[in-house]
Amino acid sequence: MNAEILCVGTELLLGDTVNTNAAYISRELASCGIGCYYQSVVGDNQERLSESLKLALSRADMVITTGGLGPTYDDMTKETVADCFGLPMQLHQPSLDRILEMFSRYGRRFTKNNEKQAYMPIGAIVFENDRGTAPGLAIERENKTVIMLPGPPSEMTAMFDNKVKPYLLGKSSQVLRSSVLHIFGIGESAVEDVLHDYMLEHTNPTVAPYAKTGEVQLRVTALADSADAARALIEPVVEEVGAMFPDYVYGIDVENMQTALVAALSAAGKTLAIAESCTGGMIASRITEIPGSSEVFLCGVCTYSNQSKVDLLGVQQGTIEAHGAVSRDTALEMARGVRKAAGADIGLSTTGIAGPSGGTPDKPVGLVYVAISTEEMEDALELNLGRRGISGERGHIRNAACLNAMHIVLRHCQARL
Amino acid sequence: MNAEILCVGTELLLGDTVNTNAAYISRELASCGIGCYYQSVVGDNQERLSESLKLALSRADMVITTGGLGPTYDDMTKETVADCFGLPMQLHQPSLDRILEMFSRYGRRFTKNNEKQAYMPIGAIVFENDRGTAPGLAIERENKTVIMLPGPPSEMTAMFDNKVKPYLLGKSSQVLRSSVLHIFGIGESAVEDVLHDYMLEHTNPTVAPYAKTGEVQLRVTALADSADAARALIEPVVEEVGAMFPDYVYGIDVENMQTALVAALSAAGKTLAIAESCTGGMIASRITEIPGSSEVFLCGVCTYSNQSKVDLLGVQQGTIEAHGAVSRDTALEMARGVRKAAGADIGLSTTGIAGPSGGTPDKPVGLVYVAISTEEMEDALELNLGRRGISGERGHIRNAACLNAMHIVLRHCQARL
Repeated sequence: MNAEILCVGTELLLGDTVNTNAAYISRELASCGIGCYYQSVVGDNQERLSESLKLALSRADMVITTGGLGPTYDDMTKETVADCFGLPMQLHQPSLDRILEMFSRYGRRFTKNNEKQAYMPIGAIVFENDRGTAPGLAIERENKTVIMLPGPPSEMTAMFDNKVKPYLLGKSSQVLRSSVLHIFGIGESAVEDVLHDYMLEHTNPTVAPYAKTGEVQLRVTALADSADAARALIEPVVEEVGAMFPDYVYGIDVENMQTALVAALSAAGKTLAIAESCTGGMIASRITEIPGSSEVFLCGVCTYSNQSKVDLLGVQQGTIEAHGAVSRDTALEMARGVRKAAGADIGLSTTGIAGPSGGTPDKPVGLVYVAISTEEMEDALELNLGRRGISGERGHIRNAACLNAMHIVLRHCQARL
Repeated sequence: MNAEILCVGTELLLGDTVNTNAAYISRELASCGIGCYYQSVVGDNQERLSESLKLALSRADMVITTGGLGPTYDDMTKETVADCFGLPMQLHQPSLDRILEMFSRYGRRFTKNNEKQAYMPIGAIVFENDRGTAPGLAIERENKTVIMLPGPPSEMTAMFDNKVKPYLLGKSSQVLRSSVLHIFGIGESAVEDVLHDYMLEHTNPTVAPYAKTGEVQLRVTALADSADAARALIEPVVEEVGAMFPDYVYGIDVENMQTALVAALSAAGKTLAIAESCTGGMIASRITEIPGSSEVFLCGVCTYSNQSKVDLLGVQQGTIEAHGAVSRDTALEMARGVRKAAGADIGLSTTGIAGPSGGTPDKPVGLVYVAISTEEMEDALELNLGRRGISGERGHIRNAACLNAMHIVLRHCQARL
């Protein structure tokens, strides 16, 4: 079975609204094992909506629309679909009762145009709306199904999860499952170079790389008769593919680097403190995104000035004078200093030249040192992260420094397990 | 002239990526006076891409594609468009030189498949990519224009702003200019309520509000025969509209809150130090995004644990015991403590409950205190930022706390000027 998504709303065509509904529905369809080859957006225009609907019905078994179910004259999705199948509209009394009840509960004045939301094409399956007044509906005709959902994302997602998904799962016998390998340290084209033949040879599960900011994700996706069967197809492939990139896979089915890092610190029973110079709080900010990070993250210090490196971290004035603030020695003293100041198991530091100014021939923009310090070991990494000439170079350098810094701690924790 | 947007990428159909590109391009097209009646998404499949392209060309004067310009075999947008117009592909040497130079500069290994990015249909207008390797391009044939842009949003938006928009405006004799008022502290519907009649009365310049994360932007856009003429139309409207929101406009034509803040600190000749608890480094991270922020930002301390608030900031143990870590008193002591520790003119602090756990009936999730301390004054703000039940509540609370904290310092600096 395959489906197509048709979103209705002039606000989408004006770019006033980002189409999160299409992404949400696509992801849910994939998880139900329903393929989706097209998404489209049209405005609140009956003629173009009707044409788009007919085109979608010619290509797919199922069309899922969002938007155009409200009370106003430019809401016309239901009417257009009904017209397309030659179905007359009739009042759906339970929907009208529900709408009247909602208006009275919230003390809102019921205007006549709100009745429109309770009219349905004959034979429609009605989905109650738990978060708004416009019900959703499905029509099954001529081996095709059209599912119409409200446009506001909070209403749409609740209706999809609670009403539409059970309806869809009742129709399909197959399930789709996927696992994602997260790869740090090599680019997408290098990954694809290694995987090219493997990707062509494998069709179930499929293996596909996606370049994300600072990492590459490899998605392994299987279609099978049951979740267990899909998992059984996926597992050996994840293992084989993972073995092709032993130094680069940092996590499987994790959210991102900071999630993996907080989990690894928890698993290792270690606490972390961070001294950031060029990353200026980014690492702390990402780690504290994660609920529960307070269990493993004690404190972060963003020492932008040299004086604060000396005062807050106990970096030796002589070290900065001899080697500079951007140096291996300063990075190591920062990591050691913050670890001791916070009483943490692991100290992490960054110092570098994020640009655009501040670079010298010896120490160009993009030179970054990342250091880790524990009671047993210390290590520092020299990185050259410059991307001369690109706009957003500063952001790139800071982000790459941040990922490299988190990665060094992650590897340390993973190696200990 | 009307245009149609065709986004290419299986990750969009799987719902792995939200299609922000379509919204961005739609908004930009609207601002150039180009209508857009359809957006479509297809996967990395040559047959479906080709069909969608032909359909779009039959409906619109111009088709703008995103995605499918990369080095791998499933990137096929250029080839499909060339095929559609019967144009052979040829090597575009300047693009290859640029790609080779980028690889060598970053010390990345050049693999053969990267050459593909430098092949162009004969006669293409090439747009350099300042943020990645895949160039964009335009083809003009048979009174139709196809513009092809890379898929990663950072590359696409930079290329659109710097290359495509001038190209589009070059097709017209008029110029478009706009100014953006940044509004913090009231919502989009409240802004629209105030502006409703004004917006209807003004068609050149137009005035349109856009809800952004944590702020509302009002874009004033004029079309005229010259840049000076457009500016002359815009200026009085910016002044009139600004006067409607005197307490809320924090900047005009600034990048964002942190840019405005660094500029205001510089103008006031003041230095800042920050103690962050619930925002966990976000404020420091955003301020240090800005080149030159080291002139005004001395240090940030992210004191996630109570002990670090006492050790690093000199908060009294008794204050935390009597009032709790999340309290007006603790916030004030944090702001004062970090100001003194860093020797800064202004101290700023945040402490709050970002959730999802940690809330109590007295101090629910979303309760945040933001405090400012200078030698002459101190002030603390109590905020209730909870959005019970929404997913991403933690992120919402942290972001809103961050913006409110920056805003309190910004207002302080602006009031002194």
